[in-house]
Amino acid sequence: MDFIASLTAIVGARNVVSTPEDMAQFMTDVRRTYQGHARCVVLPGSTQEVSDVVKLCDRHQIPITPIGGNTGLVGGAIGLESPLGILLSLKRMNRVREISLVDDTITVDAGCVLQDVQQVAADADRLFPMSLSAEGSCQIGGNIATNSGGVQAIRYGVMRELVLGLEVVLPTGEILDGLLKLRKDNTGYDIRDLFIGSEGTLGIVTAAVLKLYPAPKSVVTAMLAVQSVDDALAVLTLMRGAFGERVTSFECTHADYMDVVLENVHNTRAPFETRAEWYLLVEVMDSNPDADLADIMETTLEKAFEQEKLTDAVIAQNQAQADAFWHLRHGVSEAIRHAGPNMSHDSSVPLDRQGVFAERARQDIGARFPECKVLCVAHLGDGNMHIVVLFKPGRFETPADYKAASAEIDEIIDAIVVDLAGSITAEHGIGLSYRGRLAKTSDPVEIRLMKGIKSVFDPKNIMNPGKLFLD
Amino acid sequence: MDFIASLTAIVGARNVVSTPEDMAQFMTDVRRTYQGHARCVVLPGSTQEVSDVVKLCDRHQIPITPIGGNTGLVGGAIGLESPLGILLSLKRMNRVREISLVDDTITVDAGCVLQDVQQVAADADRLFPMSLSAEGSCQIGGNIATNSGGVQAIRYGVMRELVLGLEVVLPTGEILDGLLKLRKDNTGYDIRDLFIGSEGTLGIVTAAVLKLYPAPKSVVTAMLAVQSVDDALAVLTLMRGAFGERVTSFECTHADYMDVVLENVHNTRAPFETRAEWYLLVEVMDSNPDADLADIMETTLEKAFEQEKLTDAVIAQNQAQADAFWHLRHGVSEAIRHAGPNMSHDSSVPLDRQGVFAERARQDIGARFPECKVLCVAHLGDGNMHIVVLFKPGRFETPADYKAASAEIDEIIDAIVVDLAGSITAEHGIGLSYRGRLAKTSDPVEIRLMKGIKSVFDPKNIMNPGKLFLD
Repeated sequence: MDFIASLTAIVGARNVVSTPEDMAQFMTDVRRTYQGHARCVVLPGSTQEVSDVVKLCDRHQIPITPIGGNTGLVGGAIGLESPLGILLSLKRMNRVREISLVDDTITVDAGCVLQDVQQVAADADRLFPMSLSAEGSCQIGGNIATNSGGVQAIRYGVMRELVLGLEVVLPTGEILDGLLKLRKDNTGYDIRDLFIGSEGTLGIVTAAVLKLYPAPKSVVTAMLAVQSVDDALAVLTLMRGAFGERVTSFECTHADYMDVVLENVHNTRAPFETRAEWYLLVEVMDSNPDADLADIMETTLEKAFEQEKLTDAVIAQNQAQADAFWHLRHGVSEAIRHAGPNMSHDSSVPLDRQGVFAERARQDIGARFPECKVLCVAHLGDGNMHIVVLFKPGRFETPADYKAASAEIDEIIDAIVVDLAGSITAEHGIGLSYRGRLAKTSDPVEIRLMKGIKSVFDPKNIMNPGKLFLD
Repeated sequence: MDFIASLTAIVGARNVVSTPEDMAQFMTDVRRTYQGHARCVVLPGSTQEVSDVVKLCDRHQIPITPIGGNTGLVGGAIGLESPLGILLSLKRMNRVREISLVDDTITVDAGCVLQDVQQVAADADRLFPMSLSAEGSCQIGGNIATNSGGVQAIRYGVMRELVLGLEVVLPTGEILDGLLKLRKDNTGYDIRDLFIGSEGTLGIVTAAVLKLYPAPKSVVTAMLAVQSVDDALAVLTLMRGAFGERVTSFECTHADYMDVVLENVHNTRAPFETRAEWYLLVEVMDSNPDADLADIMETTLEKAFEQEKLTDAVIAQNQAQADAFWHLRHGVSEAIRHAGPNMSHDSSVPLDRQGVFAERARQDIGARFPECKVLCVAHLGDGNMHIVVLFKPGRFETPADYKAASAEIDEIIDAIVVDLAGSITAEHGIGLSYRGRLAKTSDPVEIRLMKGIKSVFDPKNIMNPGKLFLD
C-alpha cells in the first residue's frame, strides 16, 4: 500500500485532502508571507488516529507540520517544499472532554477554537482567561504550541501558566497521557513545559487540561492619558497597590499609533479633547458582584493626579463606552493594514526599560529611515511592546526592497533588545520567520541544549522540520 | 596538582572542608534517614568559582552534589559512597543582587536564605510569597531545585511560578546567563523550567530573578469546621467567588491529626468547643489597606452556613488569634515527632477526589495495619494532601521492621494515587528516597525522555548522580 492509501486507511478518504483547491486554505499564512507545500492535509478524528498517522510518517520518514487555526504570525504552520511532508490539522478534534467546577479545570481537544472554550467556561460560570484578537479562529493546540500571550496576561499569565496537563503524540507515535488536573506535581523533569512553546517541533498536542478562574462579576474600565512610559509605570504601581492581581489589562498605545487608528478604523473617536503622549487602557475585574471597583478606581486616579502622573482620565460609564475604548486598542492591527507597508515587531524588555526601548527604537529607526513612522503599542504590564514601522503606500517598488528594509529594521531593533536584556519575540514565537534572528541573538550554549532536546524527542527530525532552528 | 589542591586553588583553603567534624553538618539529612559521603565540601564564593569547580570535576569525572539549606525531605542533597564526589554548598553566595520595584522582581544569589529574601522584599514594601516551615534555613537554590510548594501556593503558585530567570552553571562548567526579568519570552524551548524541579541533576542554579507582589495590607484569617472534604471544597468555591485570587491559604486538617497536635504541641488549644471532622484555616489578603475583607468573609460564611456546608466558624479578631490558628497548622510536623514512629506522604490528586483519597487511604492502610492512625493534613486548595501514618512508640523492634512497614504503606498509597490520576510527590520531590516509586508509577516513555534530557545536559553523569533515576 502506498503512503496516501495508508493514510486513507487510517482517517478515511474524506479526511485526506490533496487537491490544490481543497488544500489552498492551509497553504498560506494569515499574513500571506509564505506559500506552503504539502503532499496532503490529513484530518484525524482521534488521538489514536493521530498516533497511527505519526507512526506511518515515522516509518516513511515523512515530515509532519501540525496546523491549528492558521492564525500564527511567524510561518510556524507552513509546510516546506523539501523535504515534502504532510500537514496535520486537528480541526476535527474539537470536543470539550470534561469540565470540573471543583478543580476549576476544563479538558479539551487541541482542535477546539479558543472562543468556544471561553464560551463553555462562561456557560459554567467560570472564566478561561486567554484572550487575543484571533480568538474566533485560533485553536487551543496552536495557543499551546506558540505559548500565546494576549491582553490579560498581566493577571492570568501566558498560555504556559494556564495549562495543567497535556496529551501529546510523540514523533514516534507513542501517546504521552499527561492529562493531569494537578497543581502540584514534582515527579521528575518538567516535560510539559517543553511542549508548550515548542511550535510543533517536539510532538503533537492532542488535548489539554486548562485552568479556569471564577467568572468576573464586577468590572471597571478606564482610559487614561500620561506623558511618558515612566508615568504609565507609576500608575501601574498605584493600580497594583489598590487592586492587587485584579488589574486584568494594562494596555498602552502611543499617540502616533492612536492617530493612525483614528484615521483608518471606522467608528473610532479620540478619547480626550487634548492629544496625549500615551494612552492607557486599564481594566480591573472582580468575581464578587458587590466589589466597589469604581470607587477604588476613582481614589487611585485622584492619587495619580496628585502625584502628577496623569494628564487626563475617563472611567467608562457603561459597556458601550468600555467597548469603544477596546475598539481603539484592538484597532491597531486593522489600522496598519490600511495605512501602508509596515513591519511589526514583538519584543519584551524589563518594565523599567520600556520607555528607553521606545525612545531608542524611534531614534535609531528614524535615523536610518527618516520618512517612516515608528508606532508603539504595548501590553505594558507584561513588558511586551509591539513596535510597528509604517511607511507610505508605494514606498517600496519591489517585494525585495521591502524585505531588505525589513531586515535592516530587524537588526536595529534586535540590537536594542539584546542591549536591554529583552526578548526578540515575546509572544509570537520563532517559526520560519525568525530563525536567523534567534540564531544571531541567542547564547550558542542554549541553542546547543535546545537542539539536543530536539534530537531526544525527534531523532528522525520529522516533526515540523525547518522551524525554530536554521539547520 | 592533585584534585583537592586544585579545588583549594579555586576557592581558597578555608572553603574546602574535608575533616569529618566540619563535614558532619552536611552529611545527614534533616530527617536523619541517610548518612552521606563526600571527598570534601566546597564553598565557592562566586558564579565564576562554581564554574571553575565544575570544570575541574568534569575533567576528573568527579560527581557533584549541590546542597542548599539541607532541609529537603527526600535525600536529594546526600552524597553517595560510590562514586565518591564532592558536596557543593552555595551558602557563601547569599547576596541580593538587585531589586526592581517597577518590574516587581528581586535578583538573588542561590545561597540566599528564603526568609532573608522575604525580609528584603518586605522592607521594600513588596511580598515574596514562597512560604514554608523551613523558611528560616532553606535556600532559594534548594527551593528552585525542588520546586517547593508551601502554604500560599493556592494564590501565588509553586516555586516554578515565582521564577522569571535563572543563572545556571552547566555540568560542563559553562555559565548559562538567563537572569532575565521577562514575563513573556518565546525564544525557543523552555530550558528554565527544566532546571526548576530537577533536583540538581542538570546543573547548578547560582542565581535567580524572582517575582515580587504588592505587600498585603489587609488580612482576614478564619478557622472553620466542616463535616467532609466535599463540604470544604464547597466552601472553597464560595470563597473564590467572593475573594477571587485573594484567597491566600486554604489549609485543611483532619480531626484525628488535630487531636495529635493538641496532645503533643505546647500552647495549643482546640479552636471550637465541639470536635469537628475537618478543620479549615482560611486566610485572605489584600494589598489595599482599606479592603473590607472581614465584611466579605462574614457574608460568605453566612452563605456557607445557610447551605449547611459549615458547622462552626471563627474569624480571628487580632494577630494573636490568627497566630494561634497558624500554630495549630504548623504544629503538625512537631506533633508527630513526639507522638511515635510515623511515615509521611506527599500526594496530590484532583480536588474533586481529595475526599475519596483520604477515605480510601484510611481504609486500605487500616485494613493492613489496624493499630495505626492515618492522619490527614492538606493544602486543600492545591489538591495536595499529606497522609501521615502514625504508630505507637515501640511498635517496630528494628529499623528493618519499620522500613518494611513503610514500604508496604508506600505501595498502598501509590496504588490509590495512581488510580485517582494523582502524583506520588506533590512538593517534596524524588531525590534518593522515591526513585523506586517513580520508576514504578511513571510512564516508561516519560522516563525515557527524562533520561534523554539528562544525557544531553550531563553526558558524563557527574551532576548529582543516583538521584531521581534508579539507574
